[in-house]
Amino acid sequence: MTAPSALLTDFYQITMAQGYRAEGLHETTACFDVFFRHNPFGGGYAVTAGLEDALKFLENARFSDDDVAFLKDEGIFKADFLDWLKLFRFRGDVHAVPEGSVVFPMTPVLRVEGPLAQCQLMETPLLNIINFQSLIATKAARVCGAAGGNVVEFGLRRAHGPDGGLSASRAAYVGGCSATSNALAGKTFGIPVSGTQAHSWVLAFGDELEAFRAYARIYPKNSIFLVDTYDTLKNGLPNAIKVGLEMKERGEKLVGIRLDSGDLAYLSIEARRALDAAGLDYVKIVCSGELEEFIIHDLKAQGAKIDVFGVGQNLVTAKGESAFPGVCKLAALVEEGKWRPMMKLSDNVQKSTLPGRKQVWRLRNSSGEMMADLLEIEGVSHDFSKGVVGTHPFMEFKNKFYDGVSSAEPLLTPVMRGGATTTTPPRLAEVRENARKGLDALHPTYKRLLNPHVYKVSLGPKLAEEARMLRNSPR
Amino acid sequence: MTAPSALLTDFYQITMAQGYRAEGLHETTACFDVFFRHNPFGGGYAVTAGLEDALKFLENARFSDDDVAFLKDEGIFKADFLDWLKLFRFRGDVHAVPEGSVVFPMTPVLRVEGPLAQCQLMETPLLNIINFQSLIATKAARVCGAAGGNVVEFGLRRAHGPDGGLSASRAAYVGGCSATSNALAGKTFGIPVSGTQAHSWVLAFGDELEAFRAYARIYPKNSIFLVDTYDTLKNGLPNAIKVGLEMKERGEKLVGIRLDSGDLAYLSIEARRALDAAGLDYVKIVCSGELEEFIIHDLKAQGAKIDVFGVGQNLVTAKGESAFPGVCKLAALVEEGKWRPMMKLSDNVQKSTLPGRKQVWRLRNSSGEMMADLLEIEGVSHDFSKGVVGTHPFMEFKNKFYDGVSSAEPLLTPVMRGGATTTTPPRLAEVRENARKGLDALHPTYKRLLNPHVYKVSLGPKLAEEARMLRNSPR
Repeated sequence: MTAPSALLTDFYQITMAQGYRAEGLHETTACFDVFFRHNPFGGGYAVTAGLEDALKFLENARFSDDDVAFLKDEGIFKADFLDWLKLFRFRGDVHAVPEGSVVFPMTPVLRVEGPLAQCQLMETPLLNIINFQSLIATKAARVCGAAGGNVVEFGLRRAHGPDGGLSASRAAYVGGCSATSNALAGKTFGIPVSGTQAHSWVLAFGDELEAFRAYARIYPKNSIFLVDTYDTLKNGLPNAIKVGLEMKERGEKLVGIRLDSGDLAYLSIEARRALDAAGLDYVKIVCSGELEEFIIHDLKAQGAKIDVFGVGQNLVTAKGESAFPGVCKLAALVEEGKWRPMMKLSDNVQKSTLPGRKQVWRLRNSSGEMMADLLEIEGVSHDFSKGVVGTHPFMEFKNKFYDGVSSAEPLLTPVMRGGATTTTPPRLAEVRENARKGLDALHPTYKRLLNPHVYKVSLGPKLAEEARMLRNSPR
Repeated sequence: MTAPSALLTDFYQITMAQGYRAEGLHETTACFDVFFRHNPFGGGYAVTAGLEDALKFLENARFSDDDVAFLKDEGIFKADFLDWLKLFRFRGDVHAVPEGSVVFPMTPVLRVEGPLAQCQLMETPLLNIINFQSLIATKAARVCGAAGGNVVEFGLRRAHGPDGGLSASRAAYVGGCSATSNALAGKTFGIPVSGTQAHSWVLAFGDELEAFRAYARIYPKNSIFLVDTYDTLKNGLPNAIKVGLEMKERGEKLVGIRLDSGDLAYLSIEARRALDAAGLDYVKIVCSGELEEFIIHDLKAQGAKIDVFGVGQNLVTAKGESAFPGVCKLAALVEEGKWRPMMKLSDNVQKSTLPGRKQVWRLRNSSGEMMADLLEIEGVSHDFSKGVVGTHPFMEFKNKFYDGVSSAEPLLTPVMRGGATTTTPPRLAEVRENARKGLDALHPTYKRLLNPHVYKVSLGPKLAEEARMLRNSPR
């Protein structure tokens, strides 16, 4: 593997790094939180993804000689800083929630600690990787939730570039998709691949019936016929049934038909009826064509007879929320050997940050269901069995007493120390399973597509006190 | 350069390739069109980008031994097909509109001709590359058009993965942005880079005034102060003015201030007034924070005093249209030594295709303005000075006589022959200039953000006849 270029960052991170160095601040130990301020898609939760790739980047990113030469030509960097860049490697510590976690606004999903200038340089690539994969994993969870099962991702042709396609396939699998059309993603990540024929196959034969027959000859066990090249009910479906019956006579089973245009509710019901009447009740109906969670929800409500949903563009580009709103904000600095919590206030209250090195405590009730997340200063412990007071992140006067807490689990665990990963990344199937378990432990009202119930994220007593002090301190 | 993996494609392209081969169709010469059916963003045009990368992929994509071993494990590919894949390389011809062209729905932007199975395998990566970069170039053209000038792209942290960020920066520059925050894009493509400080800089100093002073010391010629960390009008602006005046006394010039939250119309007007009153009329006002073309248009309508717009997420993720709607469709096959035009009809008329090997003629009036695009069968020529009848792509009865045509330029030109590029790609600045010229030659009514005038794309007489015959032929 060639080291990824540390130039994959915002230019201002580099100008600030030189600035910190000039001011003697670059080695000051800093703590940054990666978190987001609202759930994407107007939903009730998010699913994290991208941790493995993010850690790989942190561990390996370097400024090559070429990179440094490029910066030199910008004319604003001094020689000693450029030398410093040549030796750059990230040597900080990272705590993170496990990849595939179900998370909520204001919850830190990553806590990065290390020399200020190093953390700053890594902010942009970290966000780039985590934001995109979390966006797609969350979208996939919504789509799969609406479909109640079998969703195949096939968005590569509309994805945001080759790598956008590859990591989208990965994240879609984490969020619950069962397969991808992206052959490279299949090879790279071990995701099941799927796909059979396109319109061009039918067109190339000129005759739809012959096109289906030819496909059945080559793939007697793997045929799904695309039936809308000319006219779904008049041509495609009757031809598919004819070939399906020929296969049946030979002892073969047609796997499915695919509808890719027209009214999918109507066509799928008609197709199911015709297939069943012909004795082909085992033939599955696959639907595709600009699907997303709301359309799928609606199709199901109309009684559409769809076994597999193929979702492309709207999944891999996250229709409805083009980017995950994750940010990376300075939360504390070490001064005279002690952590000093920091807070950005901003003209918009919602753009404020939460101060200090924090831990996330996930509170569950006796049936294992998630109750709330309590953010608290790292190291401060509570006897949760006795209940705990939580404060709204932005409204100091809004308190809630959490009782009936059966377990409280710290979500942030160490994954990198001194720039080296301390854990082996889980297999992708485990990450997917983690997401599934998380979604299962979430009450259905939080998973509603529209106007979901708002999951509580509160500040623990010590953190609430810190935030109050900083808000009221003079500047 | 390592050869890109030809596995970056939809799995069904590979199953179809084996199928074509089994049927003896794989070497049949085919012609595919890359085109789109509607303008993205509800706009009146699109700007193409990505051609250079697409051609590079076509020229170099291979199935490595690993790739083939992966496919073998799928259990549905025969040994002789796997051997064929090992020797695969694309050996077809490509005609394309120049990168950075202003184009319209139904206009082929790429015409790919070659052995059917080879073209089919390359369909997905071609679309992936062209769709994404064209999407972002088009978005950038809209944003820059609304801003009427200086737009800096800084979307890396919200882009769709590392490569999504890199190619977004490239495409945004093609579409008209003047700089990027993405340092790697600066190095890779020679795009000017830009950026100064973040909130963390101010927080790290604790004291905003000291933070500005420190920055000015290090970057006396390149300082832009971010003024909203605490309170823009109460703290940030007065502190920036104070340091700006100190710099002025030293003979230095503060470059600008940046507003990143709050009401940008109000704040920019107040900031301009205060800066001017202090004698700092040369200090530029940079604004950022969830900007896009409609917001920028609205800010300008309100008289906001903004010199530079920093646009991130909504630009690199193409808010409003998550994917470019480009498709790649079979248009003709060689049978008995002659091209046979083909046409997909579909249940949705708009999902139909146009038959045959086509050329795009761009008609201009005597002042060089674009009048219309006429699609015609390749090789059919008209004396445009005598006028020509154009037919609506989907409504046979809708004709228009184009007269007053001063020039007719064929847009599709050869760029690849037998799998090898035949031209040197233009420098990125030339591609950008091509887009600028194209946009300049387009009447402003086509460039309106909302409900733009519809640019005419018509079928020439011969093509219209072909389409009519195929629509009416029995199946």
